[in-house]
Amino acid sequence: MSIPLKHFKKGTPKPKLPEDGVLRLYLMRFCPYSERAALVLAAKQIPHHKIYIDLSEKPEWYTDYSPLGKVPAIQLTAVDGQPALVESLVIAEYLDEQYPGRSLFPADPLQKAQDKILIERLAPAVSAVYPVLFTKNPPADALPNFEQALDVFEQELTKRGTPYFGGQQIGMVDYMIWPWFERFPALKFVHADKYELDKTRYAKLLRWVELVAQDEAIKQTALDSQVHAKFMATRQAGEPNYDVAFEAV
Amino acid sequence: MSIPLKHFKKGTPKPKLPEDGVLRLYLMRFCPYSERAALVLAAKQIPHHKIYIDLSEKPEWYTDYSPLGKVPAIQLTAVDGQPALVESLVIAEYLDEQYPGRSLFPADPLQKAQDKILIERLAPAVSAVYPVLFTKNPPADALPNFEQALDVFEQELTKRGTPYFGGQQIGMVDYMIWPWFERFPALKFVHADKYELDKTRYAKLLRWVELVAQDEAIKQTALDSQVHAKFMATRQAGEPNYDVAFEAV
Repeated sequence: MSIPLKHFKKGTPKPKLPEDGVLRLYLMRFCPYSERAALVLAAKQIPHHKIYIDLSEKPEWYTDYSPLGKVPAIQLTAVDGQPALVESLVIAEYLDEQYPGRSLFPADPLQKAQDKILIERLAPAVSAVYPVLFTKNPPADALPNFEQALDVFEQELTKRGTPYFGGQQIGMVDYMIWPWFERFPALKFVHADKYELDKTRYAKLLRWVELVAQDEAIKQTALDSQVHAKFMATRQAGEPNYDVAFEAV
Repeated sequence: MSIPLKHFKKGTPKPKLPEDGVLRLYLMRFCPYSERAALVLAAKQIPHHKIYIDLSEKPEWYTDYSPLGKVPAIQLTAVDGQPALVESLVIAEYLDEQYPGRSLFPADPLQKAQDKILIERLAPAVSAVYPVLFTKNPPADALPNFEQALDVFEQELTKRGTPYFGGQQIGMVDYMIWPWFERFPALKFVHADKYELDKTRYAKLLRWVELVAQDEAIKQTALDSQVHAKFMATRQAGEPNYDVAFEAV
C-alpha cells in the first residue's frame, strides 16, 4: 500500500494509510517548517510515511491531525491514542529526545538555549527577503535589510570558529535554519538582476552552505533552487502549484 | 547597592549593577513574556536582580543585553563572558534545566511537547482579546473569537482530568499561560459592559485561575487586575506609563 505522491486537496477523501505503527509526517513539499521535521527524521533515520497537504485548499480531514490546519504535523501511530504533534521546533526537539542516535541539540542547557536563540535570529532575514521571492513589487530596502540580518550569521560563524553552527558536526541549529538557505539562491532566478550573496561579505556562510549541502539528510530532502523558483513563480501568479516538486525539472 | 524601582528610559545612564554573580533579569513590569521569566525564577527560588526597561523609549545600552531590544532577557553574570539569553520560552526552559529543584516541565518528551503545543494554543485567544484591552474600537467579533479560543483550555482541563494543566502540581505550562489569565479579568474594568467570563462555560478554567492565584511564585509576581486596567488606560491613551506598577492602587 503506497501513499500517492501528490498534495491532498479539499474534497479528496482521506487516504487509506497503512496501520503499521510507522510515524506519519504531514507536510507541504515547499514549506520550510515542514522541511525542518523531514530533516530531523532523515538525520535520525526514523522510518516514516509522508502525506502531502495542499495549503491553499486543505482537505477537510486534516484538522483531525492539526487543529489549526498548520503543517508540519507528525502522528505517533505507535502511541496510545495516536496523538499528533505540531510546531516544527516542538516536533524537532521531541524527535531528538525520544529517538536514539546522536543528539542533534547540545546537551549543555546554555548552548542549547543559545542555539535556539540563533534559530529565531533568522526571522528578520526571512521577513525581509520573502517579498522579493514571492511578490511582484518588494520594498526598495528589502535586500539591504536581508543582508544586514544575514551579517549576524556570518559573525556568528566567526565567533564560534567551527565549520557548522552546531560545532564540528552538523547539529540541530544547522538543520533548523537550512531550509531558508536552500531557498535564498532562488533569488538568482526570481530577481530581475539575478541577485546573489556577496562572496566576500558572506565568505564563511557560503562555505557553510556548501558543506551542509553535502550532508546525507539534506541531500535526501533538499530541492534544487530552480525547482524552488518554479514554485515561487506559480505562487507569485496567485496559483501556487505544490506538485511541481514532483515533476522533472 | 540597590537598583532603582523604575523603568529605565532612553537617555538614562546604565545603572551601576552589583558585581555579585547574581543573575539579572531585564523586564517590563506589565509584559506577560517578562512575567514568564519572573515566574520561573520565583518558582525555582533562583536569586536575581530585576532591571526594568521602558519599552516605548528604550535605554541605548539595552541592546548590549538584547540585540533586538526585546524583553525579557536574562544575563548570566556568573558564567564566562556574562552571556545574555532572550525569548521567554527559551529562558524558561534553560532555567528549568540548569537549576536544581523540582522540574517544571514533565520529563517525558511527548508530554513536554504536548504542553509546549498547548502554550502556543493561547495565541488566538490573546490576539482576539488584545484589541478589546488596548484599543478604543475593537472588532465586533473580538469577544466571541476570544471565547472560542478559550474553549480549547476548558476542554483540555476536562481531558487531562487534573487540577493544573501540569498535573497534580503546578507546572511549566501553567506558569507560561498564567500571565494572560492574570490580565483577562481587567476586561471588567476596561470593557463598557464590564465583561466577565461565563461561570458555567468556563467552570474548570475559572477554578484553575483561583487555584493558581494561590501559588507562592504567582503571589510574588502577579499584579491586581485594577493595576493592569490602570496601565491599559495609559497605553490606550497613547502614553503607556509603566511605572504605575510601583504606585499604590
